[in-house]
Amino acid sequence: MSFRFELLATDGGARKGILHTPRGPVHTPAFMPVGTAGTVKAMLPESVAETGAQIILGNTYHLMLRPGAERIARLGGLHAFMNWRAPILTDSGGYQVMSLAGLREITEEGVRFRSHIDGSEHFLSPERAMEIQRLLGSDIRMVLDECPPFSAGEAEIEASLALSMRWAKRSKEAFAGDSNAACFGIVQGGTYLHLREKSVHELSAIGFDGYALGGLAVGEGQEKMFEVVQTTAPLLPADRPRYLMGVGKPDDIVGAARLGVDLFDCVLPTRSGRNGQAFTWDGPLNLRNARHADDEIPLDAGCSCRACRSYSRAYLHHAVKSGEIIAAMLLTWHNLAFYQDLMRQLRVAIGEGTGEGFARSFLARYRSEHLEVGG
Amino acid sequence: MSFRFELLATDGGARKGILHTPRGPVHTPAFMPVGTAGTVKAMLPESVAETGAQIILGNTYHLMLRPGAERIARLGGLHAFMNWRAPILTDSGGYQVMSLAGLREITEEGVRFRSHIDGSEHFLSPERAMEIQRLLGSDIRMVLDECPPFSAGEAEIEASLALSMRWAKRSKEAFAGDSNAACFGIVQGGTYLHLREKSVHELSAIGFDGYALGGLAVGEGQEKMFEVVQTTAPLLPADRPRYLMGVGKPDDIVGAARLGVDLFDCVLPTRSGRNGQAFTWDGPLNLRNARHADDEIPLDAGCSCRACRSYSRAYLHHAVKSGEIIAAMLLTWHNLAFYQDLMRQLRVAIGEGTGEGFARSFLARYRSEHLEVGG
Repeated sequence: MSFRFELLATDGGARKGILHTPRGPVHTPAFMPVGTAGTVKAMLPESVAETGAQIILGNTYHLMLRPGAERIARLGGLHAFMNWRAPILTDSGGYQVMSLAGLREITEEGVRFRSHIDGSEHFLSPERAMEIQRLLGSDIRMVLDECPPFSAGEAEIEASLALSMRWAKRSKEAFAGDSNAACFGIVQGGTYLHLREKSVHELSAIGFDGYALGGLAVGEGQEKMFEVVQTTAPLLPADRPRYLMGVGKPDDIVGAARLGVDLFDCVLPTRSGRNGQAFTWDGPLNLRNARHADDEIPLDAGCSCRACRSYSRAYLHHAVKSGEIIAAMLLTWHNLAFYQDLMRQLRVAIGEGTGEGFARSFLARYRSEHLEVGG
Repeated sequence: MSFRFELLATDGGARKGILHTPRGPVHTPAFMPVGTAGTVKAMLPESVAETGAQIILGNTYHLMLRPGAERIARLGGLHAFMNWRAPILTDSGGYQVMSLAGLREITEEGVRFRSHIDGSEHFLSPERAMEIQRLLGSDIRMVLDECPPFSAGEAEIEASLALSMRWAKRSKEAFAGDSNAACFGIVQGGTYLHLREKSVHELSAIGFDGYALGGLAVGEGQEKMFEVVQTTAPLLPADRPRYLMGVGKPDDIVGAARLGVDLFDCVLPTRSGRNGQAFTWDGPLNLRNARHADDEIPLDAGCSCRACRSYSRAYLHHAVKSGEIIAAMLLTWHNLAFYQDLMRQLRVAIGEGTGEGFARSFLARYRSEHLEVGG
């Protein structure tokens, strides 16, 4: 096993560590930019690395449909294909497939679905999900799980969990033997704490290189999400990394890191960047707002990203209003740099045992000026 | 006068030189990437410079409407605004305004028009065109001229030319006194060689820092365009740079440089890059074509741009098909690098007196495989 999670410090529930991988280290807590279809949108890979990102996420669903996992394998794997040489985590495709309401059918064997691109029929089983991730050559691979809707009741969640646990076992068996990659299980159970606990025990019995919390940030609200994380995280093996899937806003990340989460991913910094929104220590800014038209200052005077080093808010406002591609490029760059700066500061604070004070002062400042974008 | 055109070598009609400006040298023949609205689309300015570009073009029409010339002046000028520290040439806005059929009215005084963005009314005179360019702080400023449609007859072209020459005189008078910038006149006269000659004599009598050929590449065809250039260029003062506006395709540039043109601009490399097209020494490629889906080779093995160094045609095909922004970024980068490489090789060939052989072998190879995009 070439993967090793080194715990460097704890601070209350928070952890600082290093996930050692054959493609280099990942300092945790870490944020993984999302590279959906073989690109972190509007960024060159070297720019993503320049922000400090040490790992990115790729989406199995998108890549299996286009350009296809077998094709990527023939072309040398996802790292070479997209020119990203550091670690890549791939999801199982399950989350996106489950979202295709009306276009998919779930059975014990797996899930049959139609492509949103051309309507072609595809089948994803735990075995095929692991095979695709092997073909992509990702460093961290996720088990296939079912993702019930937030609206599901307890009985439905419990049945879904049982299926996910059977799929987790099949995924692990299908993964077996690839010593250059890690396999993560996914804890499900909705907001039912006893189901989360049951899920943790079943996954731990199978044994994974890391454990993710799935089925959160789907509408339950931050308080409920934190409750699940707070209850579940301490049950997980301390020597394995913990990954909160699809999270989140900066304040979600700060809060969940306090509760012991090591890995995060979210489309928010990249998607917001394409929508004219920028994250700052004083809260998010909407660059489309006319009040920025004559504003000579950068997005964030303390930030060293390309956008902040060389452009005024007035320029970014102009570029956003004009629909120029450079607006997406610069705002995405800044947002990813902001997220990485946040993670760096979190790691320092946890290492120094001042995580709680850091979180408190971060939130006080970040939430003080939520004038432009909903929090 | 801080501008000086240094002629280093001639080779038949072709010239190799350096345009010295307060913001640095421009080696000619030079190609100017188009930065329409304060950005060379899909490129960071440092990337534009990395391709070898020493000067870019900005569009007065677009900038005066959004974000506005006075605003850019308040923000420190166009160079600071868009983070491009090398020379900028701005057009007068005339060409774009004249294209607003039905939305503009031309009088002796100037042209009244409505913005394509919000319908607001604006007025552009020779004096205002020069004032806007002064507010932008561009290094090379173009006189306001009328651009008659290609379909215009001789009488119409002659009347239009007379107006353009009166406007040229007013433009020069309005420009007077700005010693950090250069002012270029624009030769008009359609495809009527005697009108072109007349235009050259009138402009030379006024006296400009450089001379442009306008009203070409508007549908007359390459042969006719070359005829006009061949007849007109030798009439221009040899100690001033010559600029063929809006040109063009690689073979247009090679041919016109042979006839003594020093400066070019065109949206083709940037616009094509956003449309999935790449320029290569073997002719243009359409990356959307399915035959590239499994192609492991780069766009051009001899090119050192970011796209060619790190990506396969298969990746670029995937990115184009998926509508990813990185496709526009990488293909634009490559196309601008290709244009700059072409200019560099042209300059070397002219310097060595082998321009004719270079042109012949370039065209033979470039035109041999026009399989994918119309020439």
